[in-house]
Amino acid sequence: MPSTRYQRPSERDDFGRVMSFTDAVFAIAMTLLVVEIGVPETIGGAPDDPGALLDAFADKGPLIFAFFLGCYTIGFYGAAHHRFMSWLDAVDRGFVILTVVYLAFVALLPFPTGVLGEFGENPVAVIAYAVNMGAVSSMETVLFSHARRRRLFREELPEDVYRWTLGSSLLPVVAFALSIPVAFALPWLAIAMWLLALPLQLVWARYRPAATGRYLS
Amino acid sequence: MPSTRYQRPSERDDFGRVMSFTDAVFAIAMTLLVVEIGVPETIGGAPDDPGALLDAFADKGPLIFAFFLGCYTIGFYGAAHHRFMSWLDAVDRGFVILTVVYLAFVALLPFPTGVLGEFGENPVAVIAYAVNMGAVSSMETVLFSHARRRRLFREELPEDVYRWTLGSSLLPVVAFALSIPVAFALPWLAIAMWLLALPLQLVWARYRPAATGRYLS
Amino acid sequence: MPSTRYQRPSERDDFGRVMSFTDAVFAIAMTLLVVEIGVPETIGGAPDDPGALLDAFADKGPLIFAFFLGCYTIGFYGAAHHRFMSWLDAVDRGFVILTVVYLAFVALLPFPTGVLGEFGENPVAVIAYAVNMGAVSSMETVLFSHARRRRLFREELPEDVYRWTLGSSLLPVVAFALSIPVAFALPWLAIAMWLLALPLQLVWARYRPAATGRYLS
Amino acid sequence: MPSTRYQRPSERDDFGRVMSFTDAVFAIAMTLLVVEIGVPETIGGAPDDPGALLDAFADKGPLIFAFFLGCYTIGFYGAAHHRFMSWLDAVDRGFVILTVVYLAFVALLPFPTGVLGEFGENPVAVIAYAVNMGAVSSMETVLFSHARRRRLFREELPEDVYRWTLGSSLLPVVAFALSIPVAFALPWLAIAMWLLALPLQLVWARYRPAATGRYLS
Repeated sequence: MPSTRYQRPSERDDFGRVMSFTDAVFAIAMTLLVVEIGVPETIGGAPDDPGALLDAFADKGPLIFAFFLGCYTIGFYGAAHHRFMSWLDAVDRGFVILTVVYLAFVALLPFPTGVLGEFGENPVAVIAYAVNMGAVSSMETVLFSHARRRRLFREELPEDVYRWTLGSSLLPVVAFALSIPVAFALPWLAIAMWLLALPLQLVWARYRPAATGRYLS
Repeated sequence: MPSTRYQRPSERDDFGRVMSFTDAVFAIAMTLLVVEIGVPETIGGAPDDPGALLDAFADKGPLIFAFFLGCYTIGFYGAAHHRFMSWLDAVDRGFVILTVVYLAFVALLPFPTGVLGEFGENPVAVIAYAVNMGAVSSMETVLFSHARRRRLFREELPEDVYRWTLGSSLLPVVAFALSIPVAFALPWLAIAMWLLALPLQLVWARYRPAATGRYLS
Repeated sequence: MPSTRYQRPSERDDFGRVMSFTDAVFAIAMTLLVVEIGVPETIGGAPDDPGALLDAFADKGPLIFAFFLGCYTIGFYGAAHHRFMSWLDAVDRGFVILTVVYLAFVALLPFPTGVLGEFGENPVAVIAYAVNMGAVSSMETVLFSHARRRRLFREELPEDVYRWTLGSSLLPVVAFALSIPVAFALPWLAIAMWLLALPLQLVWARYRPAATGRYLS
Repeated sequence: MPSTRYQRPSERDDFGRVMSFTDAVFAIAMTLLVVEIGVPETIGGAPDDPGALLDAFADKGPLIFAFFLGCYTIGFYGAAHHRFMSWLDAVDRGFVILTVVYLAFVALLPFPTGVLGEFGENPVAVIAYAVNMGAVSSMETVLFSHARRRRLFREELPEDVYRWTLGSSLLPVVAFALSIPVAFALPWLAIAMWLLALPLQLVWARYRPAATGRYLS
């Protein structure tokens, strides 16, 4: 056999690798969620009885709801994180370490998602999901402020743009935190409160500094 | 340790990232299907009895059939979606959001595939698969018309090319919808009907506007 | 929020996408194998009894052996397929369709690997693995001859180079086929025979046309 | 349908492919760890009883600890391996073969991680994890010395830089080896000892040849 030697192309795209490792973890976590639904092996009736299988599907209802909740959460957080990284010009060693910590919380998500599907009316299941998502959101904030401190942005962010965007990344943390006491009384209201981040975002958008678009788009 | 800083290469390939995230979800969903087959831990006989293991394989027959059905479906939908994206010149925020909704339906596919493998003669299993695939196909159509409305194609599509291609992407939706009433009487005929999309495609191809090749190839 | 539009970079790397989809399926199939080993939840003794856990590991021995067999098989087939694709200049629609068929057999591998780990002394388990690997190898040959027929190679291959390389890709098919009758008498000898492909390859290398290196390296 | 032919772009990035296959295996192994935690299907009490679900979470405590241990280990080893590959200029066939052997040990990690989560106070569980991690670390050393022997580095490494870096890659092997006898008496101390690699690294850093930064950064 002839000796094969693959030459490295000139461009060293280590930045792109951090991005693609991150994207891969998001894609795998999103796709793994389906494993938690679980295919039933028996149903309460003959295997070809439509009613019995419909009942089995109905039993899986909360797990399927949790699957879509998890998919959209991971999908939109992934898209937001990707957008954040597209504002950067470089990453340093500290950013890589913080990214591993961040991705561990992302990779954990299928666990509380599955627990929420099984025990959706249990306050502790709702709180576990909120805590995990709060950890993911907080790490976003940590990565954002690390990037500013180490001047990793394409252009240095003015103070007001930085503060406004940091606040914007803290809104989901607030929504998750507020939902925790509510979960004890009304678990499903707590889940609904996670959507609070959206109207909060609209209010917050009113205070957006005019220059933001120039730096982050 | 020296401080390492990975510089971003000049090209910002965010378009490519949306494409590779999509490809990753398709690849993972396809490869996860095997988990639903499940390795038997005991067989009805001695562990080294060929007949008993053959029987166990025969029991897994429908699950293996469902595995291949799911693999080919995901593989060919993935290839078709990839081809569609290769006609685009750019993606916008709306396209990314619709893609997350679309990918959630793709990521769900291993669940109805597994149910179909376990309860293939149950109309509800057949309908669940048809509904999930119909949702995937419909989202293809939504993405396609969004891309046109937001002028994301390389070259603006003439009305007749747009309509013909949209119709082409609706054919599988029709085949899945028509199979649903049939599933109640004859589940296996309904499965066979999913292949109806292929001859329908051939008939449809007769009405293909001459200019199509220039825009979509 | 400002409207974000990600422009596609000038280069349309659809060739690279087929390659990276293929690589992803190989990487996921390889990494999924570990799921089939399965973590024991109880052992025959106190949870902190070293002897009882050692026994549990010993019970998992064949599954761990099958894991490494599967990893190396998938890893080396993946590397060989990648090398084959590096000889190509382009892929066409037919190549993509055949690749989906090929990847379905690759994605199925964790199933017979798990069965081999559970029932390694059962001829049917050995044959199932040989049949699946034979299907993977045969699809390699189909892809290779398709690539020649459709002139997808960088440089057109001379007849002798083509025949020799085709033969080379058929050697594992031969080794897997020969192992099937042996499996009925001596399952473990059949497994050992799969390594036959290596010395066969060395003999075959003697007949390698001198020009091969120019075309395939 | 028009015949589609995807042309390969001029650059043959086979080096990048080896890197991205490696990254993919790390990303998948890291994300698969969550499967070993397992969502409980019943808890010792009513499904909506917070105390009963808290107890179930407490039972999962060691599995969640093992999940984070596994995530950080795989994440940081992945980052270190990636950094090592960024010093290379090319890979040869031998490097690809050794990489497959290396990745098999990485892909196996979810198994001892899960065992550690279930039986963390059992010396054998601790030793299994240490042995698997030791194998991963040793393969790093093998890849490093192979790269030097085959002159795969961008610039040839001077003897002192080579020896110092080789020693640096052996430090975790030492920490894992030393923890094995300790595991028999005090399993949790052995786990703590794995962190020994960090202060050892600081001591080792004092002997770092001045020229290191020029070659490996």
